[in-house]
Amino acid sequence: MATNITWHAGLTRKERTELRKQKGATIWFTGLSASGKSTIATALEQHLLHLGLQTYRLDGDNVRFGLNKDLGFSPKDREENIRRIAEVAKLFADSTTLALTSFISPYKADRELARKLHADTTNTDSPLPFIEVFVDIPVEEAEKRDPKGLYKKARAGEIKEFTGISAPYEAPENAEIHIHSEKTSVEEAVAIITKYLEEKGLLKA
Amino acid sequence: MATNITWHAGLTRKERTELRKQKGATIWFTGLSASGKSTIATALEQHLLHLGLQTYRLDGDNVRFGLNKDLGFSPKDREENIRRIAEVAKLFADSTTLALTSFISPYKADRELARKLHADTTNTDSPLPFIEVFVDIPVEEAEKRDPKGLYKKARAGEIKEFTGISAPYEAPENAEIHIHSEKTSVEEAVAIITKYLEEKGLLKA
Repeated sequence: MATNITWHAGLTRKERTELRKQKGATIWFTGLSASGKSTIATALEQHLLHLGLQTYRLDGDNVRFGLNKDLGFSPKDREENIRRIAEVAKLFADSTTLALTSFISPYKADRELARKLHADTTNTDSPLPFIEVFVDIPVEEAEKRDPKGLYKKARAGEIKEFTGISAPYEAPENAEIHIHSEKTSVEEAVAIITKYLEEKGLLKA
Repeated sequence: MATNITWHAGLTRKERTELRKQKGATIWFTGLSASGKSTIATALEQHLLHLGLQTYRLDGDNVRFGLNKDLGFSPKDREENIRRIAEVAKLFADSTTLALTSFISPYKADRELARKLHADTTNTDSPLPFIEVFVDIPVEEAEKRDPKGLYKKARAGEIKEFTGISAPYEAPENAEIHIHSEKTSVEEAVAIITKYLEEKGLLKA
């Protein structure tokens, strides 16, 4: 579609990284509704900010009311929802932000697309780290929590195609980080992810 | 479209602003092709980075190859292009980044929408500053520069609906900053914008 345009590098990411003393990356949370994704992502955001790092959390709530407010819940719209989120997370990562995304993202193909976009250098000067965090919880446990009453509505047929009840959740097989959230505290989860980031050199430039 | 979702504030922008010691804002450049928008935005980006500030530049080239690669150049697609850019800039501003956007954005209605979105608090906890920078150049001068040979192609009819030649450019009447780029050096332009940001308290938290 895009014609008559060329890629202007401007400042390189290397220069930005040195000036900001920070690398960018996307930390992609995936898991059932009520698995604890947003709770962990919010706690991680707070922790990273206190470590003096630039970070930002994209989640279904803020993105759905803004960038993706034109999208519904059809399979095609759900796919486009994840694609746009991945592209925006990539821009944040390119800007040297640790981008946290907190979406159910139940389909392997969509998560693989998100990963692939971060490796694609068509519009960035080098690949960006993509870290998948599987927030794993038995569906029975998620249903027991049900803080928003969504499982109840799904069981009553008021919500169609609800992940884990009437629509599939395709569990990641090779997520960089696997958190069993029914037996891991939020603090422990944050510590696990922070340790991973540190080992990968992502807590400094 | 969006149902069954609620807005989770997580950390407030105030908290992020204090922790990052920086406010966010969107600096929206508008002007003809070859007016100098991207050159000034890139120089400003570099200057702000050297001042120790978080900043990121969105431009037609990087966005068109990523987030908006599904969009063409129909009036509807051009409008959606600007809408998405405005929403993404808003997310960056919300993250305490000085977001720089460098797009022709020829239509007043689109720029007004971008401004309105920054004032809208549906998915952020307070309005975000939106600073329109009109990079003003006589079309004859832009055509003389023509670094990408686009005006030449437009005159030859190879590009349809080219802003300033075969499509209108609706000049801003109330831009926060008006730069006459044929008689202002890039350094002067950067100094003018930086001074404005300083006066508005946007170079610190």
